[in-house]
Amino acid sequence: MTINEALALDAADPLAFARQRFRLPDATVYLDGNSLGALPVASPQLLADVVEQQWGDDLIASWNRHGWIDWPTRVAARLAPIVGARPEELLIADSTSVSLFKLLGAAVAARHERNTLLVQRRDFPTDLYVAQGLADLRGLKVRAVEPDELLGAINEDTAAVLLSHVDYRSGSVRDMRSVNAAAKAADALVVWDLSHSAGAIEVDLTSAGAELAVGCGYKYLNGGPGAPAFLFVARHLQSQLQSPLQGWMGHAEPFAFVDEYRPADGIAKFLTGTPSILALAALDAGLATFEGIAMADLAAKSRALSQLFIGEIEARCGDQVRLASPRDPSLRGSHVVFAHPDGYGVIQALIARGIIGDFRAPDLMRFGFAPLYNQFAEVVRAGEALADVLRTREWDQPRFTTRSKVT
Amino acid sequence: MTINEALALDAADPLAFARQRFRLPDATVYLDGNSLGALPVASPQLLADVVEQQWGDDLIASWNRHGWIDWPTRVAARLAPIVGARPEELLIADSTSVSLFKLLGAAVAARHERNTLLVQRRDFPTDLYVAQGLADLRGLKVRAVEPDELLGAINEDTAAVLLSHVDYRSGSVRDMRSVNAAAKAADALVVWDLSHSAGAIEVDLTSAGAELAVGCGYKYLNGGPGAPAFLFVARHLQSQLQSPLQGWMGHAEPFAFVDEYRPADGIAKFLTGTPSILALAALDAGLATFEGIAMADLAAKSRALSQLFIGEIEARCGDQVRLASPRDPSLRGSHVVFAHPDGYGVIQALIARGIIGDFRAPDLMRFGFAPLYNQFAEVVRAGEALADVLRTREWDQPRFTTRSKVT
Repeated sequence: MTINEALALDAADPLAFARQRFRLPDATVYLDGNSLGALPVASPQLLADVVEQQWGDDLIASWNRHGWIDWPTRVAARLAPIVGARPEELLIADSTSVSLFKLLGAAVAARHERNTLLVQRRDFPTDLYVAQGLADLRGLKVRAVEPDELLGAINEDTAAVLLSHVDYRSGSVRDMRSVNAAAKAADALVVWDLSHSAGAIEVDLTSAGAELAVGCGYKYLNGGPGAPAFLFVARHLQSQLQSPLQGWMGHAEPFAFVDEYRPADGIAKFLTGTPSILALAALDAGLATFEGIAMADLAAKSRALSQLFIGEIEARCGDQVRLASPRDPSLRGSHVVFAHPDGYGVIQALIARGIIGDFRAPDLMRFGFAPLYNQFAEVVRAGEALADVLRTREWDQPRFTTRSKVT
Repeated sequence: MTINEALALDAADPLAFARQRFRLPDATVYLDGNSLGALPVASPQLLADVVEQQWGDDLIASWNRHGWIDWPTRVAARLAPIVGARPEELLIADSTSVSLFKLLGAAVAARHERNTLLVQRRDFPTDLYVAQGLADLRGLKVRAVEPDELLGAINEDTAAVLLSHVDYRSGSVRDMRSVNAAAKAADALVVWDLSHSAGAIEVDLTSAGAELAVGCGYKYLNGGPGAPAFLFVARHLQSQLQSPLQGWMGHAEPFAFVDEYRPADGIAKFLTGTPSILALAALDAGLATFEGIAMADLAAKSRALSQLFIGEIEARCGDQVRLASPRDPSLRGSHVVFAHPDGYGVIQALIARGIIGDFRAPDLMRFGFAPLYNQFAEVVRAGEALADVLRTREWDQPRFTTRSKVT
């Protein structure tokens, strides 16, 4: 596809207006919104107001005057249309890892007669580490299986299944319905990690029969570096489950200051300590970038962008690279992975040209398409650049192969 | 004391310059820095730079370019002189409650043959709730004792003791040395909660023989609402303890993305998920307000302010109020509590006059003295105002007795 053809697609894109909600640097093609979402235009001023007017001027009174105390649920409610849940089933609190621990801990306590936590090999590491830490604490067993063994491995000893909705490496989507159905049949609970799906593809927790989920605030949700995570607990389960991380903010009456823990009703029981108000403000602005956007339109654009990228790369680079993501867009999230033996260096050379993707060991080059702000013309420019880097072997320079601390 | 005498004290105060590091609203006497520290002058610009230049312009590259990956240890190192620890024994991560869970969880796993978690009745509720949640998860017993029973209750079944250094209500200071010595004799571990002492009075973890501690970032450390907490693990214990909240950021090689958890060396093993960079930036600016300040000077000013306050209130209000804090300043932290049967209404009436304290059930009026920014003249003004409110019974108006959500 030529740049002009791509520009025509952008001109006809019904979501083109959404790019104006972001401040992206010039001369950069940012294909890493799956790692860190771009800065919303509204975020700096909102944060400045919270810092200067709320914290600075109103100080402690802001907990009431500006409703800080309700932000974990108020901000979370913006997620309802994004993940297909009811507002009162959602909460913003702590990091993704800590939130995973809370829901997994609640699940295994609710199935205390069972001994197995079921996970998938090579799933996102923090999910596996959280499961292992919890298992050590409780005296449980973590069973890690291959992706195609998962459904068959759910049985009457399975307390909980922990699973990514979209795989962080390959981008493949796990069918939620079938896992939820298999777990339900065995009376096991499933905790979904939506980090690589929420805000990028259609997620409908309610209709898929999901009961527990956690997701990341700093990727497609544009909440800023290290933004707090969200968690989801289906309404019918809220009274049955208890968070293992009991803190004062999850108490029924936090300001009664009593010695006995009595969990709040509803989703607020999953709060632990005092949340960062600054981080919540930034996530609020991040979620506001989804206002008025139908998730079906977003998902359609995600598929169109990633499908165009695959076509362009394969046409321009041939068998120098190997597609390591599902080819069928209905089986894929919003990022695409190509393997190349010198993938690390190739990505560094692309970054030097202003095309920002990332690398995942051992040889995967990962490119994310954030449908709110990425454009068809960017896909074509990235394809041209990758072809050129491969042609010139630009990555053979040492500056492109010296590993950074963070890849 | 007259206002002019107090102004003379302020003029002679060797720490007077530090008030210029804060932006405090006019016509307000802010005596609630023990709940939410004031806004440092430097915070808005630092946050704006992190948001606009780092997140906005440099995006994902900031993890390397601006060293975000090291901020949890870099920012924590600023605490070394404040709490009397080595930089490599300190980490910023998660909320106070979550950090308490990590250290308490690590402690009970290291003493897994023991069955009791020892706490003090009426300690800060989240400490009690965290202990109870962990005990439920591990099948342990929480033993809650009266303050004067604590030392005698430490025995060979005590896995860990969890205790506030300064009581959030009365302001009384617990002698660290004697608790640490009793615990050491019984081979139990102590987790100190420094939330109401760090940054307000002298804390010397190393010389007091402390091994584990957690503290709040948003009180005397001026890190902003819901700032992340810090944790301390003495060097000699770091290799023996494991965090129960195992996440990818605490892995020895987070970017190797391997399935098996292998904890980082040193304090970094207590990281869990990705920390909020915005919240870390604000805490960085908060901790910078302590630069060049000797903790002995800070503690001396804390004592002078709170002692003057007690004198003023007792002289002006007589037996209408009752001191509910230790009278001896060496036994007291940096806040002072007076009891009054209509304490809630009295505090609301004071707030309406711009004198900001807070209320803790059932009848406690709490006034915090942040030695970096509070002034002797403010103490006198607060004393005048409280006497006047008591004289006029201003709090009898319904607007002062209607309870807010957050007290």
